[in-house]
Amino acid sequence: MKVVTFGELLLRLEPEGYYRFVQVDKMTSTFGGAEANVAVSLANFGIDSYYVTKLPCHEIGQSAVNSLRRFGVHTEYISRGGSRVGIYYNERGASQRPSKCIYDRAHSSIAESVPEDFDWDSIFKDCSWFHLTGVTPALGGNLPLICEQACAAAKKAGAIVSVDLNYRSKLWTREEARAVMERICRYVDVCVSNEEDARDVFGIEACGSDVENGLINRESYKEVAVKLAQKFGFKKVAVTLRKSVNANNNRWSALLYDGSEFYLSREYDMVIVDRLGGGDSFCAGLIYSLLNGFNSRNAVEFASAASCLKHSVEGDFNMVTADEVNRLARGDITGRIQR
Amino acid sequence: MKVVTFGELLLRLEPEGYYRFVQVDKMTSTFGGAEANVAVSLANFGIDSYYVTKLPCHEIGQSAVNSLRRFGVHTEYISRGGSRVGIYYNERGASQRPSKCIYDRAHSSIAESVPEDFDWDSIFKDCSWFHLTGVTPALGGNLPLICEQACAAAKKAGAIVSVDLNYRSKLWTREEARAVMERICRYVDVCVSNEEDARDVFGIEACGSDVENGLINRESYKEVAVKLAQKFGFKKVAVTLRKSVNANNNRWSALLYDGSEFYLSREYDMVIVDRLGGGDSFCAGLIYSLLNGFNSRNAVEFASAASCLKHSVEGDFNMVTADEVNRLARGDITGRIQR
Amino acid sequence: MKVVTFGELLLRLEPEGYYRFVQVDKMTSTFGGAEANVAVSLANFGIDSYYVTKLPCHEIGQSAVNSLRRFGVHTEYISRGGSRVGIYYNERGASQRPSKCIYDRAHSSIAESVPEDFDWDSIFKDCSWFHLTGVTPALGGNLPLICEQACAAAKKAGAIVSVDLNYRSKLWTREEARAVMERICRYVDVCVSNEEDARDVFGIEACGSDVENGLINRESYKEVAVKLAQKFGFKKVAVTLRKSVNANNNRWSALLYDGSEFYLSREYDMVIVDRLGGGDSFCAGLIYSLLNGFNSRNAVEFASAASCLKHSVEGDFNMVTADEVNRLARGDITGRIQR
Amino acid sequence: MKVVTFGELLLRLEPEGYYRFVQVDKMTSTFGGAEANVAVSLANFGIDSYYVTKLPCHEIGQSAVNSLRRFGVHTEYISRGGSRVGIYYNERGASQRPSKCIYDRAHSSIAESVPEDFDWDSIFKDCSWFHLTGVTPALGGNLPLICEQACAAAKKAGAIVSVDLNYRSKLWTREEARAVMERICRYVDVCVSNEEDARDVFGIEACGSDVENGLINRESYKEVAVKLAQKFGFKKVAVTLRKSVNANNNRWSALLYDGSEFYLSREYDMVIVDRLGGGDSFCAGLIYSLLNGFNSRNAVEFASAASCLKHSVEGDFNMVTADEVNRLARGDITGRIQR
Amino acid sequence: MKVVTFGELLLRLEPEGYYRFVQVDKMTSTFGGAEANVAVSLANFGIDSYYVTKLPCHEIGQSAVNSLRRFGVHTEYISRGGSRVGIYYNERGASQRPSKCIYDRAHSSIAESVPEDFDWDSIFKDCSWFHLTGVTPALGGNLPLICEQACAAAKKAGAIVSVDLNYRSKLWTREEARAVMERICRYVDVCVSNEEDARDVFGIEACGSDVENGLINRESYKEVAVKLAQKFGFKKVAVTLRKSVNANNNRWSALLYDGSEFYLSREYDMVIVDRLGGGDSFCAGLIYSLLNGFNSRNAVEFASAASCLKHSVEGDFNMVTADEVNRLARGDITGRIQR
Amino acid sequence: MKVVTFGELLLRLEPEGYYRFVQVDKMTSTFGGAEANVAVSLANFGIDSYYVTKLPCHEIGQSAVNSLRRFGVHTEYISRGGSRVGIYYNERGASQRPSKCIYDRAHSSIAESVPEDFDWDSIFKDCSWFHLTGVTPALGGNLPLICEQACAAAKKAGAIVSVDLNYRSKLWTREEARAVMERICRYVDVCVSNEEDARDVFGIEACGSDVENGLINRESYKEVAVKLAQKFGFKKVAVTLRKSVNANNNRWSALLYDGSEFYLSREYDMVIVDRLGGGDSFCAGLIYSLLNGFNSRNAVEFASAASCLKHSVEGDFNMVTADEVNRLARGDITGRIQR
Repeated sequence: MKVVTFGELLLRLEPEGYYRFVQVDKMTSTFGGAEANVAVSLANFGIDSYYVTKLPCHEIGQSAVNSLRRFGVHTEYISRGGSRVGIYYNERGASQRPSKCIYDRAHSSIAESVPEDFDWDSIFKDCSWFHLTGVTPALGGNLPLICEQACAAAKKAGAIVSVDLNYRSKLWTREEARAVMERICRYVDVCVSNEEDARDVFGIEACGSDVENGLINRESYKEVAVKLAQKFGFKKVAVTLRKSVNANNNRWSALLYDGSEFYLSREYDMVIVDRLGGGDSFCAGLIYSLLNGFNSRNAVEFASAASCLKHSVEGDFNMVTADEVNRLARGDITGRIQR
Repeated sequence: MKVVTFGELLLRLEPEGYYRFVQVDKMTSTFGGAEANVAVSLANFGIDSYYVTKLPCHEIGQSAVNSLRRFGVHTEYISRGGSRVGIYYNERGASQRPSKCIYDRAHSSIAESVPEDFDWDSIFKDCSWFHLTGVTPALGGNLPLICEQACAAAKKAGAIVSVDLNYRSKLWTREEARAVMERICRYVDVCVSNEEDARDVFGIEACGSDVENGLINRESYKEVAVKLAQKFGFKKVAVTLRKSVNANNNRWSALLYDGSEFYLSREYDMVIVDRLGGGDSFCAGLIYSLLNGFNSRNAVEFASAASCLKHSVEGDFNMVTADEVNRLARGDITGRIQR
Repeated sequence: MKVVTFGELLLRLEPEGYYRFVQVDKMTSTFGGAEANVAVSLANFGIDSYYVTKLPCHEIGQSAVNSLRRFGVHTEYISRGGSRVGIYYNERGASQRPSKCIYDRAHSSIAESVPEDFDWDSIFKDCSWFHLTGVTPALGGNLPLICEQACAAAKKAGAIVSVDLNYRSKLWTREEARAVMERICRYVDVCVSNEEDARDVFGIEACGSDVENGLINRESYKEVAVKLAQKFGFKKVAVTLRKSVNANNNRWSALLYDGSEFYLSREYDMVIVDRLGGGDSFCAGLIYSLLNGFNSRNAVEFASAASCLKHSVEGDFNMVTADEVNRLARGDITGRIQR
Repeated sequence: MKVVTFGELLLRLEPEGYYRFVQVDKMTSTFGGAEANVAVSLANFGIDSYYVTKLPCHEIGQSAVNSLRRFGVHTEYISRGGSRVGIYYNERGASQRPSKCIYDRAHSSIAESVPEDFDWDSIFKDCSWFHLTGVTPALGGNLPLICEQACAAAKKAGAIVSVDLNYRSKLWTREEARAVMERICRYVDVCVSNEEDARDVFGIEACGSDVENGLINRESYKEVAVKLAQKFGFKKVAVTLRKSVNANNNRWSALLYDGSEFYLSREYDMVIVDRLGGGDSFCAGLIYSLLNGFNSRNAVEFASAASCLKHSVEGDFNMVTADEVNRLARGDITGRIQR
Repeated sequence: MKVVTFGELLLRLEPEGYYRFVQVDKMTSTFGGAEANVAVSLANFGIDSYYVTKLPCHEIGQSAVNSLRRFGVHTEYISRGGSRVGIYYNERGASQRPSKCIYDRAHSSIAESVPEDFDWDSIFKDCSWFHLTGVTPALGGNLPLICEQACAAAKKAGAIVSVDLNYRSKLWTREEARAVMERICRYVDVCVSNEEDARDVFGIEACGSDVENGLINRESYKEVAVKLAQKFGFKKVAVTLRKSVNANNNRWSALLYDGSEFYLSREYDMVIVDRLGGGDSFCAGLIYSLLNGFNSRNAVEFASAASCLKHSVEGDFNMVTADEVNRLARGDITGRIQR
Repeated sequence: MKVVTFGELLLRLEPEGYYRFVQVDKMTSTFGGAEANVAVSLANFGIDSYYVTKLPCHEIGQSAVNSLRRFGVHTEYISRGGSRVGIYYNERGASQRPSKCIYDRAHSSIAESVPEDFDWDSIFKDCSWFHLTGVTPALGGNLPLICEQACAAAKKAGAIVSVDLNYRSKLWTREEARAVMERICRYVDVCVSNEEDARDVFGIEACGSDVENGLINRESYKEVAVKLAQKFGFKKVAVTLRKSVNANNNRWSALLYDGSEFYLSREYDMVIVDRLGGGDSFCAGLIYSLLNGFNSRNAVEFASAASCLKHSVEGDFNMVTADEVNRLARGDITGRIQR
């Protein structure tokens, strides 16, 4: 089953361990980005995963391509050219000190891409699913247009279209986001939001939750899901729910609404290794499970187990197999050694 | 006091921190193995600890020898020859993601050793204690026979014999284990089991415990201890009890049965640095305390404090002194800095 | 606002992560020391911070100077000469295993300094605040005298004088400490103590607390504060209160007594990255907030938030800005990522 | 153009820098092996390069697969199963101290593979070139047979067949090598030898050279090339010529004989970063240049420039592009920075 | 003596050792840039060195500032704002493989700076020397204008003005360079060129040299110096002469022309640790020696010894003291240990 | 054969690679020291090597002991107590930049040791050889006396006594050295000097050599050897001869005078990894070869080959076996890989 994802692939520069930016003279340099994270996770689940982006011809661009190939993502639709690989600097938080993310992604090859860089008809040939997130149109330039073209082409080719709202206040305003995302959502079958996105993008609030203080009323998100579904006619709406105890400990669960019923996953009490890509790994889990015919209950459990495991993995990419996710989804939560 | 331990010494290859195998191009390469861990821990307690194994003549074999010498273990009885050092790859788990252990130990020098490699009469001269675990006969080949020869020679030389059942499903079946261990247990004075071994090897179950889900009924293990003692005439039976909350947090305690009374140690709530060698460090603590005439209450507290500390130490070996163990066993559990 | 701090600057040698001393052949080599930690933290808050010490002329001494300059501390009053940089070896504790600190600081340049090394009149020109800790006179030699000279000069120049009692049993006895500190405290306006110092130095006990077992009765420290204030006429007394759950988890709060009222800060439940410099970062927070006219309530909240954050930062120095502290002091405790 | 290579893919464990095995507790863990090195180098030149081997299903096996995918090698013909990834430990030499290689490759998945593991007819569909080295049959078991089957199938499919004699005295005797390689060479079009292989495998000596003392008479290898060509009817014979000054400095050149003329490449005076894979990178350069229609003069210059560059690259794989090789082959030897 | 330097300060990202970009997932992250290198080297010589640039307000910008403060460079004239720190990726060459430099410096804070960012009259108050290189105007935008304004202000303030031509073909064309540099050179007293710059910028060729092949005719550069001096009325012209043997070995010397006589320095045969900043360290050596009244012979020897030493130091900055340079300049070239 | 060596064992702190002290925040922390280097090298050759020193009881002292045990040196005569492990900071030189050594060894346990710390009669029981260097008495305090006592006891016990003059100008003056070494040399059978020691300690010059400029007239050292032998009645005198080309390249050879004939070894052209311990490894080679009955020609070749290899090994200790030395001594100098 061919799944296509479209977005940026960024160089992630990060001090090791819990060092702060101003303390180090060495950084891990890996690659990631919301949509690429979905693509790699799907490849790790055994899906024929294709990533579409634009990257420069030089060695840093090539390293970005290699970071996908290494884990089996198909890279033949990646356009090469432009002048830079977008960067994000990440500093890992600890205890009461939050993680910090500095974007240096303006003027990247993808941000300056043009519609001609992507031949959507070829790309979506025999494609079963197309996934996009709100980060890509947020990069501006031609990307709102290109994203809409991609969605239209995907629908035309018969693919299911999913979107993760993924609002980033450092990239665009709520108003800009709403205008663009409303256009894109017309093509969407499956919508994923986290505990804040629906409010930030579409002004749909969950009563009784206070995200900044780590208070999440899981029940209140049912209404959010229904409102999202009604507004755009989504077939399925999923909401991930993160309760932040501190930077090292989070509680994680998700809600899936299939237009009639609500399915609330188990809640995981997590010790965090790396929380970036948590939502992306949920999307990959949801796409995998729905593509494989899981029912809604099993789908939301698989997706939330996948994303729970992501929090224990270094880097943006969720380096876990479907077997590992299934084991956790079935209830083996004690992390006992296998030997 | 001379203590002899016999078994393999493996190269342990491990990604740093919480990285997964498929993410790294560098691994820590240290040495360990159930019995060697006991030998090093005893040397750290000041015991004249002798390790018996077989290792190749080349530099990797020499590095293995050096890893013992460095901490004061006597290595003159180590047989040199054969073609390879056994390996185990270890990936550290985190949160709901379990640790993963890949064995590559077949065909190692010790696995292909012959009875002539070991001169047990010399080895056990003036020896006070001989310790063995179920892992060594599980390596197959001549090792079930050699282990039995060693036990017989140790008894003849007047040494106390202890065994840690240490069942490894990746090395042999329960049936194979039972057949061999029943022969060996005839020589044994002190038997150590963890919360699963007695069931796996001898089918002795603890009612009301569900190890896979982290539920341990400490009381139910008293019956396990009694049954083990009755079956083989052990003078003492110890059971270590691990409650796995997740891969980062475990609860740890132990039970000692001396043929008449039960002694249940304090239970420790542990943040885990490295859980490998936990049981081995308990055995070393038990041997040390019994050799030094501790009463049963103090012995089980010393042994469980020693193994609690092991979980805070990197690597297979328990790098703690008897002083440090005594401080914890006496109740200083807050981990306050000393300065 | 010019703030002057006086003390040692030590080379801190430390195994990485949770490795023990006897396991490593590489150590992080950074610099720190109680008073220098205060100086750097103040510079990070934007204060004109001056550090006074003595360091050798060679490259290790120069590296020490550079470690301060890098973060904006003024180093022009540092005396150069003598033969060695004091060292402390630090081993990070985990779970029930405590951190371990080995001092190798005798015969350092500062320990062998003479009154002529410091021109206090120049140093305190236009100075608003002078901070000192009990560690500096504890180094012996001429330092009790030099510290007293410094305090006298600071008072003469119109600076506020603060002292952190900071008792170190490895450096001097309680009796020695009391004799010297009583002389110094005559010049002091603001006194900071931790949950043990008042008892160790002046025999002032907090009823109902058992520090070694992690039991802290926060109320009982009010009496300690009052007694300290009465004994020496301090204008303000602050007490930091650490409840040690284990080496990875501490609870942290503070009390400020302004001669009439008591202000008890929020208590933080901390996952510890590096607990060294916790008290120093509190002092820096207190000096900053009082210099900036915060009221007592806000001052103690700022200072305890600053020191809470310190526990999440590697190294002796508290690498946080006033903005970051304010955010936490205002109640954003969930450590959510900022992006 | 599809090129197929067949052989082992080993885990390479190596102390960093110039440390000796017995000094380290960390090793770089990368992958390599004579034939895989050729495959990766070809992929780096833009060739459709397919690698055939057998690797276990576990994560170490997967990491081996990933090491090829990362650089664009096609891995769909890799058979999965068996129990271990072969290992070689490598210690880098310096000055007068030679590099040291310890093999731990017996019982690997490929060494225990069976003919049924490989469907040669599918593999060689549309294949232009098949490359093999003497190391693969040297692994024993079914591999001499499998290699012959592969050669026969390749010929049948119309592919050019090349072999690198690559004698390894630690794997088989000269007599064993000769018997097997004589069978294989019947299918070979292009034969590559280094300054020792022809002597070791077929007893063809180069007069006037004393390899052990770094003396290489380049002229004398013309006769070696002619004798090899005559014995087996090779269309082309290439000989790489390494003059070892010391472990840090080698001189490197090559000879190509096309059945009528001799082409001696420029000789490079190299500062060595990593000399492993030197010969393999030559083979890749030769295959690339011949497949692209280079004349013999240009082919030997391209191949020797490619392998010269390999010596400046860490790891087994030659991470250079065809552009970079062409630049050197055209004579830009000064290593000036490009900016 | 106050010296001002103006230019960019870049983040330098570099694989460790001789690894290529596509092989690594960690990079050293230090700071450098032609003009900043001069500023740090001068501070290391004890000069009151001031750096002028523009850097963003975030932590990466702050780290850049700190990299200068650490070594004593005054940073109070640095303008803060804009959105990014320029980056250059550097890959170290070895043997015949050249170093590779990928610029990602467009849109940096300094590249987008405006004249109002710099208050040149304050900056040049009491300034003895102003140094600039061709890289700064090459960044485009307002920088050609700003550089000219700076030169004019420096002259007005009575400072000596020096320029290093420093042509970068990746930043601008020869034609652009010539037009701008001709304007700037009107203010210049001391001009420094390397073996290529005079040709690239002003078309002044050295007969008999073939830089690309490592052939440098030192005599021919006398004419280059004279022509440069005549064209712009420079009081002094220095030319650095690099003979590239390979990426690990270079020969290095310099020529100083003082309007009447030529002074050719000793030629150094260098083993290269890091060749970046070689020319910058020469400029710093020249400025230091001329400011301190060295005669031309001693000045060129000091400057070339300083830059020789730079090649043995990691990073952009020349971390050597004037004492160390003097020792080499006096002829102690054997690198014998000091103990 | 039991060999005893006496001296300090220091913590060696060193930036990695070619970084300078002021650039790093991490250092390798290994152990070494002239005499300990001899002891480890002898153990690596298979000799029963005993090291005598004094080290503190804490973990840094224990790590020092472990560094010897690891490589098989007997440590039972090491006295424990005192307060510190001596330190030397080492910065590796490169090209024209010399290595730099900063001593911080005053007040170490051995420097403050007393005669009662060592029971020489027990130590020299059954001892064949005692080795000492000029560094130990240079530490001052009681050490000149203790060294003399040790020599006397060794002679009484029938051991051969060797001394390496090993002058260190940072520890004592030439006059102090001469006074003490003249007393010690009365007990000495075999004396080793480098190209400078004889001049520095006893004023015996080699005509025609200019060590500082790398000029060594090997013939002229014959006279030095004769004069040394005549002055003290040494049975054998060896002189090591280092020609320093630069910090990366040295030429190395040695001269042995046996009272009648001179034996000049092969001269090695070395690429240096770590030059510390070069002379010590020569002494170990000489002791080993003479103890094993090598004739003078073979002895000087073995000793110089051993020390040549040392220069390719990281750290103070010469980690090479007698087999490896013999291979080089027999003339295999090309550093070809063994596989």
